[in-house]
Order: sequence, then structure tokens, then C-alpha cells
Amino acid sequence: MATHLEIHVREIPKGTLSREHFSEQQVETPAPGPGEVLVRTLWLSIDAANRAWMQGATYREAVTAGNFMHGYALGEVAAVGDGTAGHQVGDYVMGELGWREFAVMRADRLIPVGAARPLSHHLSVLGIAGQTAYMGLYSQGQPTGDGQVMVVSAAAGSVGYIAGQIGKIHGCRVVGIAGGPEKCDWLTGEMGFDAAVDYKAGNLYKDLAAACPEGVDLYFDNVGGPTLETVLFQMRNFGHITCCGAVSQYDTDSPAGVRGIPGLLVVKRLTMRGFVYMDHAAELNDRSIADLSSWIASGQLKVVEDVVEGLTSAPDGLIGLLAGNNRGKRLVRVGSE
Amino acid sequence: MATHLEIHVREIPKGTLSREHFSEQQVETPAPGPGEVLVRTLWLSIDAANRAWMQGATYREAVTAGNFMHGYALGEVAAVGDGTAGHQVGDYVMGELGWREFAVMRADRLIPVGAARPLSHHLSVLGIAGQTAYMGLYSQGQPTGDGQVMVVSAAAGSVGYIAGQIGKIHGCRVVGIAGGPEKCDWLTGEMGFDAAVDYKAGNLYKDLAAACPEGVDLYFDNVGGPTLETVLFQMRNFGHITCCGAVSQYDTDSPAGVRGIPGLLVVKRLTMRGFVYMDHAAELNDRSIADLSSWIASGQLKVVEDVVEGLTSAPDGLIGLLAGNNRGKRLVRVGSE
Repeated sequence: MATHLEIHVREIPKGTLSREHFSEQQVETPAPGPGEVLVRTLWLSIDAANRAWMQGATYREAVTAGNFMHGYALGEVAAVGDGTAGHQVGDYVMGELGWREFAVMRADRLIPVGAARPLSHHLSVLGIAGQTAYMGLYSQGQPTGDGQVMVVSAAAGSVGYIAGQIGKIHGCRVVGIAGGPEKCDWLTGEMGFDAAVDYKAGNLYKDLAAACPEGVDLYFDNVGGPTLETVLFQMRNFGHITCCGAVSQYDTDSPAGVRGIPGLLVVKRLTMRGFVYMDHAAELNDRSIADLSSWIASGQLKVVEDVVEGLTSAPDGLIGLLAGNNRGKRLVRVGSE
Repeated sequence: MATHLEIHVREIPKGTLSREHFSEQQVETPAPGPGEVLVRTLWLSIDAANRAWMQGATYREAVTAGNFMHGYALGEVAAVGDGTAGHQVGDYVMGELGWREFAVMRADRLIPVGAARPLSHHLSVLGIAGQTAYMGLYSQGQPTGDGQVMVVSAAAGSVGYIAGQIGKIHGCRVVGIAGGPEKCDWLTGEMGFDAAVDYKAGNLYKDLAAACPEGVDLYFDNVGGPTLETVLFQMRNFGHITCCGAVSQYDTDSPAGVRGIPGLLVVKRLTMRGFVYMDHAAELNDRSIADLSSWIASGQLKVVEDVVEGLTSAPDGLIGLLAGNNRGKRLVRVGSE
């Protein structure tokens, strides 16, 4: 019987996630039953949300100990069972394959991969990360452009670096918040941001005020916590905060409170809105793929993928992502195309 | 020379507001100069926001020590200077008269009082409190009715008891949060709320969950702090939070943080929006006055005024309001009509 590697969750972390919360398991590769497909994983998406899933049920079921780690991935159909019309051996598909070299999936839980290449784009700029940036902005009527000042946190991350570039395309003045001078230089250099602020330098309030002397109109928040609090105090009246994520609060058991809520929302007449990209997929998917693809083609949107090699590197890939080690979209190359 | 009484701010409070932060001053009553009007104060509006003004500049200048206390009031024109066409002795006017028996005001800072009587309604249901409830709801496209579950905090307060009644008029199931069993009984009895939860009973989470077993669609928040945090966790997906005020945070120098922000906004796709009623006055004023007046006439909207007698009672009136002693709109009767 053939076997394959899976990464399992040995224990749900109480505090910070570490290597010992995972285990490697060599398991038998099952054959697909009726309505099922066997998929060989090629690319695994590493997302901060993976850690949030360990905190309990959110917009999806929680990740629990004793099972393979959940994750979104792209693979190639290796075998099909009965009644799986539409899936052929060799087709590329995406779905919640998990941290597994092979996965048997219900055929209706897989979606076909579009024509764009490289394949990895379907997990990065044309996948959840890119679409989250796009839909987070457009589903909320933002940006409006016209010199609007847009701030993006986790700006060198998979969603942030795209959200910021979309802001630039729409005529915003875009300021990124990121950790460390290298990321900041990269944002203002290669990524074309107007300014970048290094939150690790320890003067976020002052440095952000210097970068945004007239305040902030639009804040695309990926981190929550103290950064959100700092930006809140620098929002302009009638500003908008797009709540995309709260990565500063995922890798802990004691999330922080945000001061200034709701007082500053009232005084400054701010709107804060949370979203999950899939709510807008039906409405915006085609437009999103078309716009993102055309911006890539024209060179207005740069695509950055941060590739980690091999499934056994996935735990470190996630741990490092939570520590801010990635630049652009982090992917694990699990199998060769 | 005639003199009159004023209540001054002796000292800006560091913590809780008390009687000793105020002083009574007998001052000379000046004559109005060119473009000015002398107004005799009849009714003074006591608002939680008065305390917030002491925390610093907000949507208006801060209140500072050594001057008369600021406040919105209604009075009668007692004398006019030159160039104040439109104001006649005996006219009723409103404006920021302050905590003063007489005030010399720039004529263009006064607005004429409409035809509705009693006069006090212009500071309560037809004034800032009633219009704040109305505009806070309608400017945000809420309530939508249809069995929506609407929760109002400080529900027995000047804005809350009206916001809740408007919710009922629009077909919501309305649940009030208030302090003490008497207020709760009053809300579900006379005021027609569907349920009321006593936050002072110490089981807000459990009691609110029992009152809203399917969660909360619309939260009209007047208090912020731990109450907001509790309601946040019980919001339904795609719910809306109208941020009207944060009275739990005004009477302190160390405002609390709100946990669950922004995580719950993302996961539940919530919108939180702050507002100040005057932003919407130009658009909604006529509709607001017409609707509120017709609901009063039809008996659908009950008006409750909590009258304190005499300007010297104003400090205790505000201190008591911050402690939640009022029911409906608190006013000070400063002079006789």
C-alpha cells in the first residue's frame, strides 16, 4: 500500500505556536470512493488565518488536535472514483486539501483551476490573498482615490502588498506599516508605496504622523491590536477602516482590547467594517480576476511569492509568517508540477 | 448693575466628576453690543457629552477651567443690540448659552425655536436627543424592521428611550439595556420594549443571550466599554452597530479597551459606524421633526422629560446623569417661561 506524508496538529497551542504543536505522519494513501477524487498536492497556501482557525470556530470549523492541519491548496487529480464527472486525471484543482501530500476529497469540494499561469498565481494574486485585497476595498466602496491617504498594515504581507498597490493604481497616497527597515525600503522601492513606517522602530505614532501629516482617510487593517489603536487616533473625520484581519491577535490566548473604540468612531464619524472575501465572490469574482490580471499584464501590479520548499517546512513556514518573516504571499511547494 | 448666576468649571476632573469641580459665580449682566443679543435662559439641556467635552477637543472645542460651563439651552430674548435683525425681545431662541441665567450671544449663533409646544420639547424629543436617535438610525439605513433584533444601551436615557421606540415603530424586536430593575420594568411596561436587561445585575452576557436567543442584528450603542464588548460577542453575522456615544468612558481618565475588535468585526462581517447628529441635520432635519411630531401626536412615541429645578442644581444634574439617575431627557428649569 502506498503511503504519503501529512502534517498533523499534535496539540492546540495555548500561547505562541511552535514546531512541537505539529507532528509528521506517514499514512496510507486511500483510493477515492464514489463521488471522490484523489488529489496530489502541488502548492499549499500559508495564511495567518490558519493560526486563527486554532482559536475556535470562526467563519469555518475550528482546527482540532489529532487531525491533519487544515489549509487551502492546489493540486493535480491523481485518481477519480465513480460519479465525479468533470474531474479528470491530470486536471488542476483547488480546495481545502490540508497539509497533506495526497488528499481524498469529495469531488464537489474542489474547484477547477483557471487558465492563468504560473499555477501558483491561483493561490496568491488571483487566489484568496489577491481577491481579499481587491474585494476588501471594492466591496466597501474604497478607495475613492483623489489623493486619499491610505494606510495598510502588514503591508509587506500577502494581502497588504496587493492592497497597497491597488490603492496606488486608484490614485491614493499609500503608506505601508511593516516590520523592519528592509521591508520598508522594499515597499517604497520596488512596490512603489509613497512611504513606509517601521512599527518595530518603536515610534509608530510619531512616525506615522510624520508620514501622514494630514491624517488617514482609509486604513486597510490586517493586524488589529496596538497598531489599529495608533492609526485610529490619526484617522481623519469620516474616514473608513476596512477590517481584513487581526494577525497581531491570532498567536495568543489573551487578545488585547482596543482603546478609543467607540469614542473615536463617534467623534471622527468613522466607519469600521469587517469582511470575509467569499461573501463578495459571487458579485465581484469575475471583475476581480479580470482587473488583477490586466494590472499584472500592464506591470502596474507586481506579484511576489515567498516560496518554502517541501511539506515538512510548512510548520516553520506558518510560524515564520506569524513572526512576519514573509514578503508577499507565502506558499509551500509540496509536489513538483 | 444687574447681576446673574453662572456655574463655572473650577477644575477639570482627573477622575470622576463631582460637585467641587464647579463653582457658583454671581457676575454682572452685560448689555448686548452690536450684532449681539442678551438671552434669559429658560431650559438647560444636561447631556453625557457635557462630560466628554472636559476630556479635550472633540467635534467641538474643549471645556476648560475658569470659564462658565458649556451647555446647550433654550431662552427668551431679553434685549437686542444693533444689527440683530430677526431677533426681537420676547422671541424664543436656542444655542450654546452655557450654564448661565443670562448670556450675551452673537445673534448668528442663535436659532429660533419652532412652533411646537411645550418649549422643553425643543431640547428633548425635537432637540438634539430625539434627533440624535432619529438620525443615528436613519442616516445608517437602520432599522430595516422585519423582526430585526435591535438592542439599545442606556435605554432609559434621553437618546436610548427614543431610539428604542423608533425601533418598535419600524417593526423591530427591541431589547433595552439599563441599570436596575425599576428602569427595566419601566422600559418593558410604559415604553413598550419587548425585553430589558439589567446590566447591574451582573450577568449581562447570560441575560442578554436569554433576551436575544438568536443574536443581535442592530445595536444602538450609547455606552461603549464592557457593554459594547458583551454585545459584540452576541452580534449576528452582517450586523450593524450604530456608535452614538460612550458614556461609560466619559467620567474617567483611563478609558477601557474593547476586546474582540477587530476580530469579531471580521469574523461576523460587522459594520460599526460613529456619527454626530449635526452632520445629517441638513439632509434629515425636516423629515425628523415631521416624523417625531406625528409619532408623538399618534401616541406611538412617548416623551419623557426628567426636570431638575434651578441652575444651582445643574452640577448634581450632570453628576447624577453620569451615574444613570435620569429617566428620559434630563433638563434644568433655569427660568420661568
